[in-house]
Amino acid sequence: MTTIPSRPETAGRPAGHTEESSALELADAVELLGLVAQLEHVAFGRLAADAALAPTIEQRLELSRFAAGAVVRRDRILARITEIGGDPVEAVREYDHVLDDFDARTQPSTWWERLLKAYVGYGVADDFCRMAAEGLDEGSRAIVLEVLDDASHAELAVAELDAAGSADGVLTARLALWGRRLVGEALGVVQRLLVQRPALVRLVALGSARTPVDGSAPANGAPTKLFGELTAAHTRRMARLGLTA
Amino acid sequence: MTTIPSRPETAGRPAGHTEESSALELADAVELLGLVAQLEHVAFGRLAADAALAPTIEQRLELSRFAAGAVVRRDRILARITEIGGDPVEAVREYDHVLDDFDARTQPSTWWERLLKAYVGYGVADDFCRMAAEGLDEGSRAIVLEVLDDASHAELAVAELDAAGSADGVLTARLALWGRRLVGEALGVVQRLLVQRPALVRLVALGSARTPVDGSAPANGAPTKLFGELTAAHTRRMARLGLTA
Repeated sequence: MTTIPSRPETAGRPAGHTEESSALELADAVELLGLVAQLEHVAFGRLAADAALAPTIEQRLELSRFAAGAVVRRDRILARITEIGGDPVEAVREYDHVLDDFDARTQPSTWWERLLKAYVGYGVADDFCRMAAEGLDEGSRAIVLEVLDDASHAELAVAELDAAGSADGVLTARLALWGRRLVGEALGVVQRLLVQRPALVRLVALGSARTPVDGSAPANGAPTKLFGELTAAHTRRMARLGLTA
Repeated sequence: MTTIPSRPETAGRPAGHTEESSALELADAVELLGLVAQLEHVAFGRLAADAALAPTIEQRLELSRFAAGAVVRRDRILARITEIGGDPVEAVREYDHVLDDFDARTQPSTWWERLLKAYVGYGVADDFCRMAAEGLDEGSRAIVLEVLDDASHAELAVAELDAAGSADGVLTARLALWGRRLVGEALGVVQRLLVQRPALVRLVALGSARTPVDGSAPANGAPTKLFGELTAAHTRRMARLGLTA
């Protein structure tokens, strides 16, 4: 095992960086990029289904635009996978059924529940990917963060839910309950991912070490910190709707 | 009723052009643009559903791209409606259920039947719109023809159906039968549109007068000529797949 000079994208990594750890980094990056691409693809499918079900033509037009946007975002991630030498189709295949369980457990029964599901579900998934992205090489990180920041579909959900909820106390109470169920299931998905995917654990730990919230957080405290941050972000999201998390 | 000078986009029209006939032309253009936009929106929904059902990940990725492309094309048409002073949402609403009947009567039972339905169904609808577009003002016509020429989804259908069909005589025979049923239903849709929408009849007649195939076609022969051309185009499409129309 010979220590080789760092390639440009691994510059600034700790000393003792080796060819093997570079290969591992690449594989880890491809894993996270595959997850993000799969989530955007799932978002496309969900938004397209929402477009078909939306009550008004304006919403149908708008939701189909968001669906098209998810395809464009997914393809940017796929292009990045190719760029760093990965196989985009295989990377997506790895996460083919990542939300099947979540979807089966959280079948919305109204339009409002559908909207909130997208808002809360995407929210947690996006936040998780954002945090894991902190462990990526600079180029991949920038693309992932840019893709995840394009959250126009969330704005629609907020506007509609806000308008509906503020006029109806019963709806508000029901949606608050639904939101708690959604976030519980979504955090369950993240937990399973961390158990099954060492790559994601490594990225979260690396990202956490790079961006300490305070000086005390040790590397093995990363998962705890992760769930704390995911929950806090969820609480903020629900508060934007005037809902109790 | 005073004859006013032609506006630029109506230059070259027959003498005796009036303000009222300009308003009629505008309304007719908005009608056809509304139909094209609605068809692209329906194509989006169908391609998105195809993406969800496609057997392989490669197909799912590709079909979702086509779905996104349909949204972009639809929005180009909507932008044109706004440009000429129409209301895009109302224009689309006019054709809200234009293919519901067709869809109910032609439920595909296999993946191949789905593909052929898209190819044949889009094909007839696109051809009809293309012919009616000949009656539009130059700017609108150019946009409609450009939008309709972007037929990448047809290429996918052709490639897949061709690969599958050439290896399987039973499948070929079944699909030929399915194609005949599809084209019959699709021509029925066109027929109903021509009965219900005088605007489309006017555009087809105007387009037909502008682009005579031979010198003998009188204006009131336009519908007959239309169905002849639609059928001929369908026969060519089926032949590309090695199927008898």
